[in-house]
Amino acid sequence: MPVTTIAWIDHKVRLIDQTKLPTDLVYLDIDEVETLGEAIKKLRVRGAPALGVAGAFGVLLGLQKFHDEEKAKFFLELQRVVTYLRGTRPTAVNLAWALERMQRIAEAHREQPLAQIKNALFAEANKIFVEDQQTCRAIGRHGAALIPDPATIITHCNTGALATADFGTALGVAFTAHAQGKKLHIIVDETRPLLQGARLNMWELLQENIPCTLICDNMAAFVMQRRKIDCCLVGADRIARNGDTANKIGTYSLAVNAQKHGVPFYVVAPVSTIDFNIASGQEIPIEERAAEEITEGFGRRTAPFNVEVYNPAFDVTPNDLITAIITEAGAIRPPYAQNLSKLQPQPREPRHTGV
Amino acid sequence: MPVTTIAWIDHKVRLIDQTKLPTDLVYLDIDEVETLGEAIKKLRVRGAPALGVAGAFGVLLGLQKFHDEEKAKFFLELQRVVTYLRGTRPTAVNLAWALERMQRIAEAHREQPLAQIKNALFAEANKIFVEDQQTCRAIGRHGAALIPDPATIITHCNTGALATADFGTALGVAFTAHAQGKKLHIIVDETRPLLQGARLNMWELLQENIPCTLICDNMAAFVMQRRKIDCCLVGADRIARNGDTANKIGTYSLAVNAQKHGVPFYVVAPVSTIDFNIASGQEIPIEERAAEEITEGFGRRTAPFNVEVYNPAFDVTPNDLITAIITEAGAIRPPYAQNLSKLQPQPREPRHTGV
Repeated sequence: MPVTTIAWIDHKVRLIDQTKLPTDLVYLDIDEVETLGEAIKKLRVRGAPALGVAGAFGVLLGLQKFHDEEKAKFFLELQRVVTYLRGTRPTAVNLAWALERMQRIAEAHREQPLAQIKNALFAEANKIFVEDQQTCRAIGRHGAALIPDPATIITHCNTGALATADFGTALGVAFTAHAQGKKLHIIVDETRPLLQGARLNMWELLQENIPCTLICDNMAAFVMQRRKIDCCLVGADRIARNGDTANKIGTYSLAVNAQKHGVPFYVVAPVSTIDFNIASGQEIPIEERAAEEITEGFGRRTAPFNVEVYNPAFDVTPNDLITAIITEAGAIRPPYAQNLSKLQPQPREPRHTGV
Repeated sequence: MPVTTIAWIDHKVRLIDQTKLPTDLVYLDIDEVETLGEAIKKLRVRGAPALGVAGAFGVLLGLQKFHDEEKAKFFLELQRVVTYLRGTRPTAVNLAWALERMQRIAEAHREQPLAQIKNALFAEANKIFVEDQQTCRAIGRHGAALIPDPATIITHCNTGALATADFGTALGVAFTAHAQGKKLHIIVDETRPLLQGARLNMWELLQENIPCTLICDNMAAFVMQRRKIDCCLVGADRIARNGDTANKIGTYSLAVNAQKHGVPFYVVAPVSTIDFNIASGQEIPIEERAAEEITEGFGRRTAPFNVEVYNPAFDVTPNDLITAIITEAGAIRPPYAQNLSKLQPQPREPRHTGV
């Protein structure tokens, strides 16, 4: 069974501090929204679906202290918490999506006593958590159907249990195929600068006894040139409605190389990652992170001081490089603009106003 | 003026310990062949042309202690030193090439007194050193002619003064263009696993006040997607006679991305890097290095213990991805098999035996 990355326990958010892996397995019990926000910013918790769950639990954290007579303050604080948490990882659409769900539930219960609003929020956060588990399992099933036996697979960043409330998205596909008895060998991109592949994917694969080999990101092309790779499995932080996909920096380079070598390139993500409000990858904002992640991320200064550094956290892979987008609703194939639109939640029918 | 990376001073090899850069500038004075061999293995000195000079100086180191009556021992030791040093970096053709030159000179003077053989070896080592300086300057001129003004250039690994006896190969092209008054901006691949770009290219560019930006290797594709890149400049460790080029791991991935984005891709190397004995890149042996370079290269463990790691030091870029190979004899264009062959040294005419 995969590890439990995030949970709501005893009025606190319990999460694995992923910056301490793979050498130390440390759990944090968080009881303040700002501590959670810092944990999100510092990537102690990361991965698009896990961030959605973290956002929902963050709303609970921020609002559990209010009492019935403080409803106005409660709604002010809700707005503040949502705005603050959304800003901690601006590219992560699942975070914004979960926060909006929580806000919508609160609004829907606005006329009720605060205790009931809080109950509804608790139920909604739990629903987001459970849905993520069910989503992971469905994604795993749809994805595993595309994995041959035996298979050699390249992964980028961490997309396993540590990125979700269950066993992951892209790595969850591998876990499912492995559980089905398929013989897998996973080639793991270390994923500079923060090494989520080396630290987290390798750790998760070892837990499950799946054969895996660590490489530097810049070796993937050479590996594809010299041996047969059956597919690449990557996650997504945000998918435009035309299928353009923002994911961890380096994904685009891997996709270009996969195309060059005829390797199927699968994006694996829940439907909630699709942002139907944006038409293409050009509109996805790209978060830039601190220079020190590159210049002294290993505990030792590895570049001269005072140098200019460019550190985009994500890149955008155009839809024409993506073989399929694997979701809980199945593997979506091109043309994406047409086929993804079928997954768009229908706007609720406006209520009859009785005229 | 660029730094002096390697020199023969007072019967010792003086070299910059490049593993200590960019934070410390430390010179080593080496008086034993085995110490030099360790320095080569540990990459304290690296870069194809600098390795040629190091090999030549290594022969001097190993043989300077012999006296006239020890000629037989001298030639035995010469063979041992050449074999040992060649094995310290098996992919580096310049190292083997310089060692062969030294061996040939010794053989040519075999009948003479040992003092004269030693003089001839000293002169040959010095010639290799001076030729490298002249070669760098000629490469710089030919390469700079291809650089527009202004220009944004991506580099991989270190190919500057620290890689040669002068101001470098690929980076030497940038130094020359900069000296000509061209306005450059260099995007520097950090070059995992050993970060020669971050540690060495950035350091050299700062010394020369050339604007530069550090990126992770996996960001180069995204940079090419989002802004105009005028060319990539990379070095070479070995070039087959069809133009296939072995260079630092990650070069091939960069070349694939350059092709995808229509960015000219220039390999910059002295003619001595061309191995006319091999027909294509398939025949180039690829050195694999220690797992720890990837898992704990900079003082902190960044992967679980006991994991499988693949760490090829080089990859092979097929000739069809290379726009031109810039040498001291000019910029060579495809078809390489035909155009490189013109650079092949002609075998000396056999002497008339007077029959």
